[in-house]
Amino acid sequence: MVNYPTKRSTPATKINKTSFGHRGMNLEDDLNQTNQYYLDLNMANIHKKPTPITIVKVDYPTRSKSKITEAYFNVPSTTDYNGVYRGKAIDFEAKEIGRLTSFPMSKVHPHQIKHMENIVHHGGIAFIIMRFTGMDETYLVFIQDMLDYIKTSQRKSLPYEWVKSNCHLIPYTLTPPVHYLKVLDETIFKGVHR
Amino acid sequence: MVNYPTKRSTPATKINKTSFGHRGMNLEDDLNQTNQYYLDLNMANIHKKPTPITIVKVDYPTRSKSKITEAYFNVPSTTDYNGVYRGKAIDFEAKEIGRLTSFPMSKVHPHQIKHMENIVHHGGIAFIIMRFTGMDETYLVFIQDMLDYIKTSQRKSLPYEWVKSNCHLIPYTLTPPVHYLKVLDETIFKGVHR
Repeated sequence: MVNYPTKRSTPATKINKTSFGHRGMNLEDDLNQTNQYYLDLNMANIHKKPTPITIVKVDYPTRSKSKITEAYFNVPSTTDYNGVYRGKAIDFEAKEIGRLTSFPMSKVHPHQIKHMENIVHHGGIAFIIMRFTGMDETYLVFIQDMLDYIKTSQRKSLPYEWVKSNCHLIPYTLTPPVHYLKVLDETIFKGVHR
Repeated sequence: MVNYPTKRSTPATKINKTSFGHRGMNLEDDLNQTNQYYLDLNMANIHKKPTPITIVKVDYPTRSKSKITEAYFNVPSTTDYNGVYRGKAIDFEAKEIGRLTSFPMSKVHPHQIKHMENIVHHGGIAFIIMRFTGMDETYLVFIQDMLDYIKTSQRKSLPYEWVKSNCHLIPYTLTPPVHYLKVLDETIFKGVHR
């Protein structure tokens, strides 16, 4: 049985390591590198999903190559990343917050939140990876913790201070740049035989 | 512990129910309906991934709407469908075979096969759903069974007779049209407490 983290005043695991000077890569690039690292080292199989679009027109300039000439972005109904780690389905969304000092809930679509709750209901692990660019800090926030806070506090954003005290700092390392599976090892999989 | 099906001369479960007259929907539409049904009835959370494309040019005719004017299809590196069911990561590819009497392995890209093997390695469940349109029959083939056969027989296709005897027929029902989770219940999850 895995230890699902529940609401608590102090986090079960808090990684106190300071993040080192970050090279200004964006979160998506860092996560792509991290997922490739996990794949190469046979640690996990987690991928970014393609951008959901509606294709309207396709040209066939040559027999082998098709060129999309009209398409539109769709509102995503699921999250950006999913896969499998240590037998569990992993599902998450990643957001950069710039220089704000709180994470606005409007950054995540309500159906994405509903989707993540549903993943947890079916036995998967769902979370948001948020980077406060101003602080150069990246956190992993379990969807249940976030929803508990939102419901209790009636707020429309997660203040940086709350994130700092209740969420899981992902230390910056060179390889991989965003080692978020370490957080899962130290929380959900804590004490679980590999 | 789940019962992973292994190579065998007779299948652990063979659904002998005859498929009823099918209404000529294509497999992708049937699977979308099926996954929506699973989602609505809170049985599983499985989605088709968006088509992977590379976006080259985007126009912004209005402030709110972006129009993609040049994009190309990518070779998919993963499968088309994934999600979570009964706590396990689910990953599969779906292929229609038309009136052929064997499933050509060339229908699935080698990196998709490698991807599915990797999913199983990490504890997920991976398979191919194949529809022999000519016979109006849809089968679920576990990736391990397929690879075992390919390695042993040195063939480049799966003959219909082999599929019929060794794979799992998905009976056609109206709701849902392709009830593939039933096959998982009767094989991998057989005897596993829900």
